[in-house]
This record gives sequence, structure tokens and C-alpha cells, in this order.
Amino acid sequence: MQLFENITKMQEWAREQKKQGQSIALVPTMGYLHEGHLALVKEARRQCDKVVVSIFVNPIQFGAGEDFEQYPRDLEQDSALLEKERVDALFSPGIRDMYPGSFQTFVEAYGEITEKMCGASRPGHFKGVTTVVSKLFNICQPDRAYFGQKDAQQLMIVEKMVRELNFPLEIIRVPIVREKDGLAMSSRNVYLSPEERAEALVLYRALKMAEEEIKNGEREIGIIRQKMEEMIEACPRAAIDYIAINNANDLSELQTCTGKVLIALAVKFGKTRLIDNLIVEV
Amino acid sequence: MQLFENITKMQEWAREQKKQGQSIALVPTMGYLHEGHLALVKEARRQCDKVVVSIFVNPIQFGAGEDFEQYPRDLEQDSALLEKERVDALFSPGIRDMYPGSFQTFVEAYGEITEKMCGASRPGHFKGVTTVVSKLFNICQPDRAYFGQKDAQQLMIVEKMVRELNFPLEIIRVPIVREKDGLAMSSRNVYLSPEERAEALVLYRALKMAEEEIKNGEREIGIIRQKMEEMIEACPRAAIDYIAINNANDLSELQTCTGKVLIALAVKFGKTRLIDNLIVEV
Repeated sequence: MQLFENITKMQEWAREQKKQGQSIALVPTMGYLHEGHLALVKEARRQCDKVVVSIFVNPIQFGAGEDFEQYPRDLEQDSALLEKERVDALFSPGIRDMYPGSFQTFVEAYGEITEKMCGASRPGHFKGVTTVVSKLFNICQPDRAYFGQKDAQQLMIVEKMVRELNFPLEIIRVPIVREKDGLAMSSRNVYLSPEERAEALVLYRALKMAEEEIKNGEREIGIIRQKMEEMIEACPRAAIDYIAINNANDLSELQTCTGKVLIALAVKFGKTRLIDNLIVEV
Repeated sequence: MQLFENITKMQEWAREQKKQGQSIALVPTMGYLHEGHLALVKEARRQCDKVVVSIFVNPIQFGAGEDFEQYPRDLEQDSALLEKERVDALFSPGIRDMYPGSFQTFVEAYGEITEKMCGASRPGHFKGVTTVVSKLFNICQPDRAYFGQKDAQQLMIVEKMVRELNFPLEIIRVPIVREKDGLAMSSRNVYLSPEERAEALVLYRALKMAEEEIKNGEREIGIIRQKMEEMIEACPRAAIDYIAINNANDLSELQTCTGKVLIALAVKFGKTRLIDNLIVEV
């Protein structure tokens, strides 16, 4: 596996691969890799000639007072994990190379899809995401880019951006990977105390309960949301950021549960904010 | 020459060329081609294996009350001109294909470089430009893209965007092409009445006078600007939009004329707004 810290060298490598007719997969990550990331990498490895994984903790997608500084990093261990998956190139650029002092160009998605859920809780977050993802696309020139369904809203916004700005590539959705007890894999899980870790199971339990309710015929969003709320509020360490039940195609509001429904939630345990989601076909 | 109206087909053609190791030139235009455009095409033809010219009158770079509807169009004549220049592909997409109803993703450059000059006179203009140029880059996947020095501010913003978003391509600057009497070539020149056309020579005359002043030792921006103003205001049909004397590298303000100086101006004749500029090395 080749390590690239230099943007121009990464770009030249990608250009050379394309010239030779090789298809390129990109797996954009912020590092501190877990099985969820590796599921993306394995899918990429199956589908493309060359696999590039980027590791970059992107400062512009963190808000003031968020965990940019504390975000866990371990390039050495990540690198070993990626070697094992037969990744071709690891791209790990410096912050000042990605964002020189004069940096002032942004890619931004507007509208309902960016305004609710994480967009409401983390103003500017998705602008940071679409900007860095655009840069990574331009640098690594992938034919396919792999994103996890755990960040459902991010995935939808990136898909919309690719469609609307005509990026010459395909976005591949990869399902959420969970711990045996149901907790969605996340680099942020390391922040949790044992007590919080135990209570954090409530995210998935609330989602499964909501799914069950719908399967049993419940269609009223207000009722489902309230039941989820009650379940989560029973956990003393949990503070709900949002519970959202929306159209899974464009995040538009639903009058009632019909079609493809995205149930998503964000819950804080102390300073740690966890997200999870589930799609139900009604 | 192949004509592409379909975005996907254009993109597939470009992808195929790249796979075969062919270099691609893109000349983005709004059509109604004149010698200025053809200078871009000739330069592209010299430097690349395949030349793509796009013709698209981009609605989102026009403000309310501007000339989007009246902007001159003649695809048949343009097509004949491009055939003669041995262009490989003409890309002429439909507005609804470029901007479907749900379109909400924009590329935007912020800061001084977009705020003054045409950015002040035409709010939203450059956001429209950077967005459409990003789309054209993603669709046509050029190795080099050709822009005229006449739109000096646009050129600088596009260069900055390419640098900051890491587009895998090179921007080529092509000098202004002028009529024999000095008027900068522009599709908008057809709007001018014979009287306005005669008076419009004052743009280039004012620029040359300013250049002469600097060559003769004048360094005070206020004085140079005032002399230009006086010359232009002597024309009864001319209304100055702006006269700007700035650092030619980043449009920053200058205390005095030093280094590379961009002298740029926009002047209205009736409803027709003309721009012109000149770079002086002091």
C-alpha cells in the first residue's frame, strides 16, 4: 500500500491509474477505523481495480465547541488494517495543504435536505462535508465512492450533490455495521463510559421498536415518535437531540408512514453525540 | 464534429477519451461565437488531442432584469464555425437538464475577489459561474480549460476555485481579441447602436491612457482613475459602472501602482454593459 500525504502526488497517481484503464474506488473516512469502515473497504475491493482510502479529520465540518480536537486518531493502526484489506493507496493530507490560509471556495447544498436533523443541530456541518468530499473526488478521481448508511443524511446530500454537480462517479451505499448487542459502530463510541455504553443500546432498541410499531399497523408519526421519546427518556444519561421520521428519498415531511420511511435519531450521552437510523418500507 | 445535447452521453464520451489516453480541452462559452472565442478554440486545438466546446447560456449567472432572454443565440452558425476549427465535440445541453426543478447545490467562492467589480454590480453572478463551470468540468473532464482574459475577474475566480477544490485540470488564459479599432470582442456588441458602437471605443482608449500614465511615472490610483472617469464621462451615451485598479494576482486593494496591476472597467451604453481590462507590469 502506498501512503500519500501530498495532494499533487495523490492526484497524479490517480490520473495515471485512469490512463491505464483502471477503475478507482474511494472510501473517504476520518480514520480511527472500525468494522463499519472496513465493510466499505471490502465492498470497494470487490468492485474496483484500485482502492484508495482517505483519512482526514476535516476541521470545517466541525462546529465551535464540537470534538475536532478530541476526535480519536491512530494512523499507524489504521494503516495496518488497510494493508490487510489489500488497499492500494492511503491518502492522508495535512490540514494546511487541504485548507491554505486563503481558502474561500465552498460547495454547498441548500434546501430541506440539509436544514433538518443533523443540519439543524450542527450548522455548517454539511457545507464542510460537501466541500471536503468534492475536494477528495477531484483529487482521487474515483469511479465509485463508498459511504455508510449510518450517516444517512450525509449520504443523501452527497448523492444529491453528485447528481446535481454531475460528478463522473457512482455513490455506493453500504449498510450499517453493528456491535453484537446492536450499537452502531462509530469512532465516537470510544468516548462512552461503561454506563453510557450500556445505555447507548437504547438508540437501536428505539429504532427496532418503531419498526415493529409500523409493522403492526401504526402509521401516525406523532405516536411513533412519542413512544421512541419515552423509551429514550427512561435512560437517565440520554439527552435526545432529535428523533426524525421522514421520506427516505429526500427527507421531506410525511403526513403518515407510507413508502420508504427513514427513522433517524441523535442522542447525547454526556458530551458524546451518537446517531443511528433505519429504513422501513411500508 | 459530434453534437451532444445529453449530459450523460457527453460524460460517457469524455470518459471514453480519457480511457484511451486522449487529452481533452474544454472551451466553455455562451455561444454566438466571435473571434475571441475562436482564439480560445485555436489554442485548445494546438494543445490537446480532443477539443470540446460547450455552448450554454447559463441562466443562474444572470440577475433579475439582466439580458438572459435577449442574449444572442445562433447554434447553427456557431456549429459551422466550430466545424471549421476541427472541434471534436459540441456540448449544448438543455436548461432543464442542467438545472432540474430540485436543483439546490452550488459552488461558491467568497471573499474580496468575488465582492468587488462585477461581483458588486451583479450579485450572485459569480456563484452562477462557479457552479456551471464545476458542472462542465465534471461532465467534460478536461485536462485543460480555456478562458479569455476579457473576463479577468471570472478567470481569476475560476483559477482560485480550481486550486482550492483541486480540480484535476489546468486553466489556460487567452489574451483579449479586439476589433481593428480596439473594441474588445463580445457577443453583447451586437446590442450597440452605431452611435453607441462609436462611443464604446472609449473603454480601450481609457485603458491605454491609464497604461500610458503609469509608463510615464504616475503611481497614484486616485489620479489615474479620475482621468479615466473624465475621458469616459465626456461620452454622452456612456455611464460608468466601475473603474477598478487592483492587484492583478488577487484583486486586493493597492495603495499605489506597483507590481502587476489590473485596470478594469465596466461601462453601460443604454442597456448594454461592456467590460474591458488591461494588465500593466510596473
